[in-house]
Amino acid sequence: MRTAIYPGSFDPLTNGHYDIIKRAAKIFDEVVVVISVNYNKTPYFSLEERKAMIEEVVEHLPNVRAEIVDGLLVDYVANYPNSVIVKGLRALTDFEYEFQMALLNRDISDKIETMFLMTNIKYAFLSSSIVKELDFYNVDLSRYVPEQVARVIKQKKGIKE
Amino acid sequence: MRTAIYPGSFDPLTNGHYDIIKRAAKIFDEVVVVISVNYNKTPYFSLEERKAMIEEVVEHLPNVRAEIVDGLLVDYVANYPNSVIVKGLRALTDFEYEFQMALLNRDISDKIETMFLMTNIKYAFLSSSIVKELDFYNVDLSRYVPEQVARVIKQKKGIKE
Amino acid sequence: MRTAIYPGSFDPLTNGHYDIIKRAAKIFDEVVVVISVNYNKTPYFSLEERKAMIEEVVEHLPNVRAEIVDGLLVDYVANYPNSVIVKGLRALTDFEYEFQMALLNRDISDKIETMFLMTNIKYAFLSSSIVKELDFYNVDLSRYVPEQVARVIKQKKGIKE
Amino acid sequence: MRTAIYPGSFDPLTNGHYDIIKRAAKIFDEVVVVISVNYNKTPYFSLEERKAMIEEVVEHLPNVRAEIVDGLLVDYVANYPNSVIVKGLRALTDFEYEFQMALLNRDISDKIETMFLMTNIKYAFLSSSIVKELDFYNVDLSRYVPEQVARVIKQKKGIKE
Amino acid sequence: MRTAIYPGSFDPLTNGHYDIIKRAAKIFDEVVVVISVNYNKTPYFSLEERKAMIEEVVEHLPNVRAEIVDGLLVDYVANYPNSVIVKGLRALTDFEYEFQMALLNRDISDKIETMFLMTNIKYAFLSSSIVKELDFYNVDLSRYVPEQVARVIKQKKGIKE
Amino acid sequence: MRTAIYPGSFDPLTNGHYDIIKRAAKIFDEVVVVISVNYNKTPYFSLEERKAMIEEVVEHLPNVRAEIVDGLLVDYVANYPNSVIVKGLRALTDFEYEFQMALLNRDISDKIETMFLMTNIKYAFLSSSIVKELDFYNVDLSRYVPEQVARVIKQKKGIKE
Repeated sequence: MRTAIYPGSFDPLTNGHYDIIKRAAKIFDEVVVVISVNYNKTPYFSLEERKAMIEEVVEHLPNVRAEIVDGLLVDYVANYPNSVIVKGLRALTDFEYEFQMALLNRDISDKIETMFLMTNIKYAFLSSSIVKELDFYNVDLSRYVPEQVARVIKQKKGIKE
Repeated sequence: MRTAIYPGSFDPLTNGHYDIIKRAAKIFDEVVVVISVNYNKTPYFSLEERKAMIEEVVEHLPNVRAEIVDGLLVDYVANYPNSVIVKGLRALTDFEYEFQMALLNRDISDKIETMFLMTNIKYAFLSSSIVKELDFYNVDLSRYVPEQVARVIKQKKGIKE
Repeated sequence: MRTAIYPGSFDPLTNGHYDIIKRAAKIFDEVVVVISVNYNKTPYFSLEERKAMIEEVVEHLPNVRAEIVDGLLVDYVANYPNSVIVKGLRALTDFEYEFQMALLNRDISDKIETMFLMTNIKYAFLSSSIVKELDFYNVDLSRYVPEQVARVIKQKKGIKE
Repeated sequence: MRTAIYPGSFDPLTNGHYDIIKRAAKIFDEVVVVISVNYNKTPYFSLEERKAMIEEVVEHLPNVRAEIVDGLLVDYVANYPNSVIVKGLRALTDFEYEFQMALLNRDISDKIETMFLMTNIKYAFLSSSIVKELDFYNVDLSRYVPEQVARVIKQKKGIKE
Repeated sequence: MRTAIYPGSFDPLTNGHYDIIKRAAKIFDEVVVVISVNYNKTPYFSLEERKAMIEEVVEHLPNVRAEIVDGLLVDYVANYPNSVIVKGLRALTDFEYEFQMALLNRDISDKIETMFLMTNIKYAFLSSSIVKELDFYNVDLSRYVPEQVARVIKQKKGIKE
Repeated sequence: MRTAIYPGSFDPLTNGHYDIIKRAAKIFDEVVVVISVNYNKTPYFSLEERKAMIEEVVEHLPNVRAEIVDGLLVDYVANYPNSVIVKGLRALTDFEYEFQMALLNRDISDKIETMFLMTNIKYAFLSSSIVKELDFYNVDLSRYVPEQVARVIKQKKGIKE
């Protein structure tokens, strides 16, 4: 059984991420969305909030599940002998950073394989940061995140305000 | 009447920005320099200080004025039916970020048009951040910012010290 | 009166080019599509064929016309005192080449101004070469070129075969 | 059964290509190396020579085979319902071209999926053209191509001289 | 006597930096590793700690020494009439930033010359930040930093915990 | 004695090349301008014509000379034990190609070192091809090539016409 490990911060999940998940779910037997601790940034949503959101979004995809990983990605991936890391590349960016990460992961363990899917061109400008910025300006998020995520963002905002 | 909307943080205005303003003022009937709130960064100059500086610099250009916009740029631009957003592209950088922004703006409203002018090659290395860094090291700023801006930077520094 | 000079080989005109023409026609009072001799390549269509195709495509745009220019572009542009060169930048490419050309043109004459429009993201992969390659494989071209161009390509092919 | 379609000119196959084939053969149930007609270039080796070389090199990989495709790649891929196109991306190049091709293929048929593997960094500089250039200068090719390919290159040269 | 000035934050020195130092030491008569104050970031190691680490690492290279510079780099370089600034370029990144810095330095003083060495491809993914991140996850650092640096990182961590 | 080997086609030498030569002549004890056979292109000037032009241009630089090399560059460089290959990088281009070449050369012989100088920003758009294209349109070349080269281009053209 081939497993795709799809790691990211997902703070929050965007339609660009969701597009990659759906496509990976068609290619691989199993997809694990790995919510990883971002070493540098203070997150907007807690790891648990992000996990709950993703689980709700992927509920209808039987071969997709979400996990929180707070250690090194390569250690986690080692648990899945037939797995590959899957990453999305946006047309305009990501290339250099993702290549560095893939080289680093492969340097730590030469069993780690990374495959890249090209993010749908209509999401070429989309990122979790841009979603948060648009939300700050009260832009309707329905074109940018799954509805479950849009709802949680609204709730969170209500609590914060 | 064609209006060019030239948005940015301008914290502070550099000679690279000023070069774009002067060239846009030749091509368009009216240029509005839009000082926008940067969602992420703590500014060095207040919005009002930046507006005052720009107004002094562009005083001799009758078809240029400055405005502060603290909402979404596309909402502001919608007030000008015959307008285009104008952005400078430096030879070495800016491309990916500006393209993402232009795609995002157009996604929010398909009436928004962005045009790019190539920053004068002699300012290829220049940015507001570099001006502040050079000032930190007491480098003479006269080649990098208009004299009005250099004067205000000096005053600000005097106040801070 | 502001004139946009839109130069290219247009061998043949694609929907990406056509998109730029229509948008420039909204921003400028007049758009001149300049079909220039490509110094390096043997064209598929003659200059006259290309001019005829473009004229047919832009017939409904009263402020757009096509011209053949076999000399230096900057000399031609000099005839239009209030003009700017307009070029399309595709998200994935063009940037370096177009910047070099803009720098060169400005070096030859500092009165020459170039503005860039971002090609519609849905044509990010499109070029005249790709159209010719798709045609070689008999792919239906209706999504890639205006119908008038598709028709002429078919005729040309009939003649050649 | 998941099939990876690995298309290219392979004129000739390099160790960079071979590295991608071996890694794809671990991830996918079946790998088809598709030797495609290059629309623009005059090849050094005939399609049949290239196929024979690849077959010899991959003989020990039971789930890899080679095929010649002289039509449109997407038409060929359509024969394999569970397939993805696999392409190698070198650290220094390929990105823009491969993204354009992937976008084009997906535009022609939205069922076409492309995944990218990062070429081993030690082959970051390697290409079929560089192999031919090195051979022109009589550089020992054993580090750059599989031995079977090196042998055929030598024979071909003998014939040509 | 030709002097190479090799500036950086070195927070901490990586094997990528060390590779550049050794290669510069073969080309130039003298190499000065200049530890500069990073205007933006809070360092992990103090300037003195970094200097001590580098001095230990380069002890066996008679023509290499380390210095702390807290002013403008170009002012420091002016003390060495026959010097060039040397910078490493990693295959995947650095290019734009280093070019901007080199242009800026040359703009401040046209006597400043910058030469670039390509970082060894096997360190293409390596940076001081990645070293700190790997250390956070307790990854063995021996392949990424000289042993003297690995030892100091361990000590520092012991103190902090 | 440190030798800089500066290889290229120089078909013809531009002011960008000449700028690199003059700067390398200040840093290195000796500069050898190596005119290499371009494996792919039909040259405009013969190797001997190019050598004669360069010799005339660098006559006033006592530590610079020109040589024709029709074999592999690394074999030639091996004759100079204390040498480095020097290449110019233009701000807008060259990066990927030059990095591939440097990696390849180092792979063939790990004694080969390549250093990069950044081409003067005012020549960011300049290349031998552009010089030939400008000459085709009878543009005055005096800003783009040394006067000796401009003279020879004129003569060559006279002969050809």
